[in-house]
Amino acid sequence: MLVATRNPLNIGAAARAMSNFGFFHLRVVNPYELAFREARSAVGAEPLLARAEEFKTVAEAVADCTLVIGTTAVGARQPQHPVRRLEQAARLVRKHLASGRVALLFGSEKRGLSNEDLSHCHWLLRIPTREEHRSMNLGQAVAVCLYELARDPQAAAKPEKHIAATAADLERLTLLLLDALRSSGYLKSTTSASQRRRSAAPTDEKIRRLVHRLHLSASDAELTLGILRQIFWKLGSTRPLTE
Amino acid sequence: MLVATRNPLNIGAAARAMSNFGFFHLRVVNPYELAFREARSAVGAEPLLARAEEFKTVAEAVADCTLVIGTTAVGARQPQHPVRRLEQAARLVRKHLASGRVALLFGSEKRGLSNEDLSHCHWLLRIPTREEHRSMNLGQAVAVCLYELARDPQAAAKPEKHIAATAADLERLTLLLLDALRSSGYLKSTTSASQRRRSAAPTDEKIRRLVHRLHLSASDAELTLGILRQIFWKLGSTRPLTE
Repeated sequence: MLVATRNPLNIGAAARAMSNFGFFHLRVVNPYELAFREARSAVGAEPLLARAEEFKTVAEAVADCTLVIGTTAVGARQPQHPVRRLEQAARLVRKHLASGRVALLFGSEKRGLSNEDLSHCHWLLRIPTREEHRSMNLGQAVAVCLYELARDPQAAAKPEKHIAATAADLERLTLLLLDALRSSGYLKSTTSASQRRRSAAPTDEKIRRLVHRLHLSASDAELTLGILRQIFWKLGSTRPLTE
Repeated sequence: MLVATRNPLNIGAAARAMSNFGFFHLRVVNPYELAFREARSAVGAEPLLARAEEFKTVAEAVADCTLVIGTTAVGARQPQHPVRRLEQAARLVRKHLASGRVALLFGSEKRGLSNEDLSHCHWLLRIPTREEHRSMNLGQAVAVCLYELARDPQAAAKPEKHIAATAADLERLTLLLLDALRSSGYLKSTTSASQRRRSAAPTDEKIRRLVHRLHLSASDAELTLGILRQIFWKLGSTRPLTE
């Protein structure tokens, strides 16, 4: 809910962030008429803006909501209202959304929400910005709040989609790399890979450990094998390229 | 790090979000000269912009970084790179920042990062926007990423700063309210509060439970007591206003 917004770009930005994060009910209270009209008619304006509802007062705009939250940049201007950090506020909002409508109020770019606006709020929300630079751009503040509401706390702990190369792939890669290093003269011994495997020479182990440290995915192991085969072939080795 | 940014407003917005969330090293790669100059000279431009470093290529811009992350709106355009959701990416970035520099790359408004830009990245980051509307405004995307990096996972669980009214306050309030309700004629009995306390009439209990459900803070209990005293006095009661 945007209260007394002045800049059409900010109205447009707020609508875009809403669409990005899946919030579809934009209400504007007493906007500067020109700004609202400009925002609506802007090229690429959100369909969401066309459906935005306009109200004269905050009281009318929040009438059907069961939780009304004001946003504030100043941590302690309103000691008569509890001020919650966004992280915590979002948890409460998500809980509340299961049973009722929640209004999130953003004030004008210059002055924020007035005391009259704030008196309609159950509590206030603060984005945890630096104390030295608290005030955010309106469009960015809307985006950050909606992101926090849409974010998935579980996603941070989700396992990565990384299909690791098998030990067999890594071993193939190690042996081919050793062959290439010997062909190129980087290593001196010329015993064959299968012979070295049994003797487990220190150099072989060093290279094998290097290959394991690369944390190659299955497809990257494939790619690297192809590269090495080509290099090995170009080096003029007469040994067969596959084991 | 902003790559090939076109709109001076977006450069300014990115700088503002950086200042809000405490990130101070802005690098721009190959910006549209005019946009960069305009952003720098804008009224209220961030001091951060004046200190921004300019580079001709991504390779030069990320040279001293040990982790390079590209941002992408499209989930699966780059299957050769792991794509992580912002929630998870931020956890990895915070860990990495303890030991090295991390570069977070944002592409141009129209095309995002090029394949050449992306090839300098260790992996990609995606803001969890709706599938139907993935692409975010650049300034908002920067703000959301930096917020996630700055947010405090502990804050969501922090206890609220709510100094609750004591049981004695609530009891005083209950008795005064009962007196006022009787004076106004809302309730009929005219026995005194102290007498009723012993008999624990059902009405008294109902009002007491109501008062407890309000979850009043200590200061709000004080405020409400003052209001009730005034109302009670105005109702013309001859009983003393304090017990």
